[in-house]
Amino acid sequence: MSYRAPVAEMAFTLRHVAGLDAAIAGGAAGDLTLEDAQAILDEAARLANTVIAPLNRKGDRHGTPLAEGAITTPPGWKAAYRAFVEGGWNGLSGPAAHGGQELPLLLNAACSEMWNAASLAFGLCPLLTAGGIEALDKHGSEDLKARYLDKLVSGEWTATMNLTEPQAGSDLAALRSRAEPAGDGSYRITGSKIYITYGEHDLTDNIVHLVLARLKDAPAGTRGISLFLVPKVLPDGSRNDLRCSGIEHKLGIHGSPTCSMSFGDGGGATGWLIGEENRGLACMFTMMNNARLNVGLQGVAVAEAATQKALAYARERRQGKAPGATEAMSPIIEHADVQRMLLTMKASTAAARGICYLTAAALDAARGPEGKAAHDRASLLTPVAKAFSTDLANEVTSLGVQVHGGMGFIEETGAAQLLRDARILAIYEGTNGIQAIDLVARKLPLNGGATVRAQIASMRGVVEGVLKDASPAFGHSAARLRAAIESLDRATSHQLKALTSNRPEEALAGAAPYLRLFGLAQGGACLAKAGLAASAALKGGETDPAHAARIALARFFAENLATAAPGLEQTILDGAAFTQDAKLALAS
Amino acid sequence: MSYRAPVAEMAFTLRHVAGLDAAIAGGAAGDLTLEDAQAILDEAARLANTVIAPLNRKGDRHGTPLAEGAITTPPGWKAAYRAFVEGGWNGLSGPAAHGGQELPLLLNAACSEMWNAASLAFGLCPLLTAGGIEALDKHGSEDLKARYLDKLVSGEWTATMNLTEPQAGSDLAALRSRAEPAGDGSYRITGSKIYITYGEHDLTDNIVHLVLARLKDAPAGTRGISLFLVPKVLPDGSRNDLRCSGIEHKLGIHGSPTCSMSFGDGGGATGWLIGEENRGLACMFTMMNNARLNVGLQGVAVAEAATQKALAYARERRQGKAPGATEAMSPIIEHADVQRMLLTMKASTAAARGICYLTAAALDAARGPEGKAAHDRASLLTPVAKAFSTDLANEVTSLGVQVHGGMGFIEETGAAQLLRDARILAIYEGTNGIQAIDLVARKLPLNGGATVRAQIASMRGVVEGVLKDASPAFGHSAARLRAAIESLDRATSHQLKALTSNRPEEALAGAAPYLRLFGLAQGGACLAKAGLAASAALKGGETDPAHAARIALARFFAENLATAAPGLEQTILDGAAFTQDAKLALAS
Repeated sequence: MSYRAPVAEMAFTLRHVAGLDAAIAGGAAGDLTLEDAQAILDEAARLANTVIAPLNRKGDRHGTPLAEGAITTPPGWKAAYRAFVEGGWNGLSGPAAHGGQELPLLLNAACSEMWNAASLAFGLCPLLTAGGIEALDKHGSEDLKARYLDKLVSGEWTATMNLTEPQAGSDLAALRSRAEPAGDGSYRITGSKIYITYGEHDLTDNIVHLVLARLKDAPAGTRGISLFLVPKVLPDGSRNDLRCSGIEHKLGIHGSPTCSMSFGDGGGATGWLIGEENRGLACMFTMMNNARLNVGLQGVAVAEAATQKALAYARERRQGKAPGATEAMSPIIEHADVQRMLLTMKASTAAARGICYLTAAALDAARGPEGKAAHDRASLLTPVAKAFSTDLANEVTSLGVQVHGGMGFIEETGAAQLLRDARILAIYEGTNGIQAIDLVARKLPLNGGATVRAQIASMRGVVEGVLKDASPAFGHSAARLRAAIESLDRATSHQLKALTSNRPEEALAGAAPYLRLFGLAQGGACLAKAGLAASAALKGGETDPAHAARIALARFFAENLATAAPGLEQTILDGAAFTQDAKLALAS
Repeated sequence: MSYRAPVAEMAFTLRHVAGLDAAIAGGAAGDLTLEDAQAILDEAARLANTVIAPLNRKGDRHGTPLAEGAITTPPGWKAAYRAFVEGGWNGLSGPAAHGGQELPLLLNAACSEMWNAASLAFGLCPLLTAGGIEALDKHGSEDLKARYLDKLVSGEWTATMNLTEPQAGSDLAALRSRAEPAGDGSYRITGSKIYITYGEHDLTDNIVHLVLARLKDAPAGTRGISLFLVPKVLPDGSRNDLRCSGIEHKLGIHGSPTCSMSFGDGGGATGWLIGEENRGLACMFTMMNNARLNVGLQGVAVAEAATQKALAYARERRQGKAPGATEAMSPIIEHADVQRMLLTMKASTAAARGICYLTAAALDAARGPEGKAAHDRASLLTPVAKAFSTDLANEVTSLGVQVHGGMGFIEETGAAQLLRDARILAIYEGTNGIQAIDLVARKLPLNGGATVRAQIASMRGVVEGVLKDASPAFGHSAARLRAAIESLDRATSHQLKALTSNRPEEALAGAAPYLRLFGLAQGGACLAKAGLAASAALKGGETDPAHAARIALARFFAENLATAAPGLEQTILDGAAFTQDAKLALAS
């Protein structure tokens, strides 16, 4: 079973959960029409299904061998990347001034999901380039942009993020890479970086490394870090003084090289400053915020792929007789415990998709008349989109293995690969623990809490809608969702109070369960919103069975998954005691 | 960081949670003294730490190559197995009539945990042999026992379980392997089996296969299955007509061969009936029940190994400044979100250990004056021991990767191996979905529900103890545990009512969350019981800091993990609606 992009479901979510219809009507989507959007999704699906998806298992087996500083991508990788670039997909929402189509990020989010569902290892390459484009476009000099942005937008060249060093993972204050002005406007960069995704490859002629380094006499800590553009090939065509010194033997995403990079072994790699000296962190966060949403979308993507694979297997595989069945062995999809697993997978994937698309839509809206409020909403939702989606990706891919039974543990089935591939998502671009801290310590206090309260109010609006709709098919959805949202509201008050009362450690202790609670409430609201649109369509006389399925999925989420919310509230409210005796309890 | 058996913690759990002291005092442990038990644990720990644990990474990398029907185990495997056999460990609780030491299963459970924590792939071999011994001892003829049992008890030979066939995974009714009487009391066996753990290896001179097959004219379904003993080497020294035809490329436990077995390519493998014709399933369940507890212990084991590895890393690795720290970078164990992960790992492991040891103790008690009540208690607890522990093993090993950050995704760290190895546990010996069905459909109705009610009453007793103890260190433990236990009680009533009202599908729909709820309540009670013993020791003047740590861990579990219980109850009570529209929701 190979991935097939669920275009109808994605389009429905774009339109009715993330508000694409409203964006188009309100002019926030430029010239885009619904017909255009549908055509773009269909064409992206074709590329994802027929060109990228068939590469995924090959990439896992072949890996990316390194020899004499050069990396060979798996067979078929180059041709697929070429097709991707030639189709104009890399620049879908890139700046028009540099050859991009400047289409809504929301539409690009759906396409991103497709590339990554087809192959996470493949999708990772343009994901990194997108971050580079964003940073360069926002912070780069006109000269640098003129030299690099067109080719990055088209995808002719790719970009990397060079942040991590062996002693500095999540803690960028500890960076040691150095930069010195060369006197001609360029800098000489020296240092070692690790975990550089696509730091070296054979897909393109040039690779544009964005490298964090310290200038001499720069202030200590994160206020002394600058960002540099360091190309693999210099403008004069010569090789820059940088190389891939090793690759990692990883649990998953074997099709994407994870490189150790060495800059300046021959005296210094040539680079150019992006933004101002010592302000690299701000530029890096531009790159990072973009990437965080995209990693959330990777979580949606791999969860979707796992769900499709498990569903296909459960329809084929026969074991045991289901209640009421006439044959001796029923397809396992007819057994209640398998149904619970499959529905959990499907509902989790759809909830994560809703949150990620909502975040992308907020980023689009931030460029329009809504402005700052939308920007702040995107800031609030980004850590949830990243962490909730990727936590669910771990859970959904693990359930995918479980649905396959013994076959799931055998590599040839492909279910295990999805589990292995997914496992990085909760770690890179800021671990999910860091996302939770970001949500609680930086995002809840936005506008004195008004941003988060507005978001909770929007969730409450969905519950009102369900009550008003009054379709029996929603079951207890309204009551369960309301309970989840009220738990979130009380937990939010608790967290804000802890922060303003100078008890940050208490807020941080509950950060991870708080993020989960937020995701459950928001995810449940997204599914219910889709369910409401489906219910309206049914009432309007439409007969597509997918509509009833949407209501059923929203109900399943509310009655079976959102029910965890009050327990999480309880944990947040009085579960912080452990910070006092954690050392004791962890002593041995 | 290599595994070190946590002997003090294990001994404390044996004594104060699983009642070893009481068993010894009451005569249920034979001649065993506490001093003997301690000496045995210490000696087992030596073997596990110094001989087996160093093999684990090697086994993962080397695998078990198959060439010309023969399998080579990883370097060092043979010598370690020899040391294991020579130390008498294989027969620790084996029947004295066949050279075993007939020590309590409870003590053997602790030792089993050590072998498997040191290396799951290694520990799997004696685990299979133990199942074979049990089945043969209980159901085999005196002649068969005389010929095979001594060498299986000593470990000179190993045993396998040959159940699964490609078309029959969990559904044994679909078995096709055949047996025909040869006229001399033996049978000729033909057929293909898959997923046969240690079906072929070079650790011993002979391998004793226990094979399920159908006699000609046997009734259809599971009432027509018989169990046969089919040795690799026949009593006359010639090779039997069976061979390993392939091995699987698996996600984990690479050190243990998973074989496809072919019986009777040359006309029929020679085998002897175990038990009566067509009663193979009963014999197999003997083997299986033993194995299910042992798989639960494997879950505890790999969770313990992951916890130790994560703790060691978190003490070394420095990132970011913790609140109140004086240095720029604190060990990550000082950050609240890392503490939450580590405490979740440690508390989950300890809870699963408590449940597994409790189950082993019930099996011991079933042989003594308590008899049937203890046997039924063991029956009730076995699916919880198996499924709850192995679900937690998946979660704990995944958290172990997360604590390592980017390093966790790199194979050389070893954290990823534990995640990969653990993933089979929720699948083999009956998937965890099947355990949940077993718990709800077969175990809850035991004695009209009296068995489960008695178990719930024992949990309530622990809460009373915590209230009476009144140490402030327990925080809200009593309230949270009570809430969990009362949720379990109400959910139990709901499930029993659904069963007796002829709505089994409703009970089955909630089986998985019910098992989880049971595990949370029982696990919390186990930790609180340990905490109470620790509190008593502190009140008695002992100063070991481990006592305060035990109370803190019990509190963490109650306040942070058992809080999920009421939400699970809610899901069980009204979450079964999905069975009505699952087909609809899963149609696309």
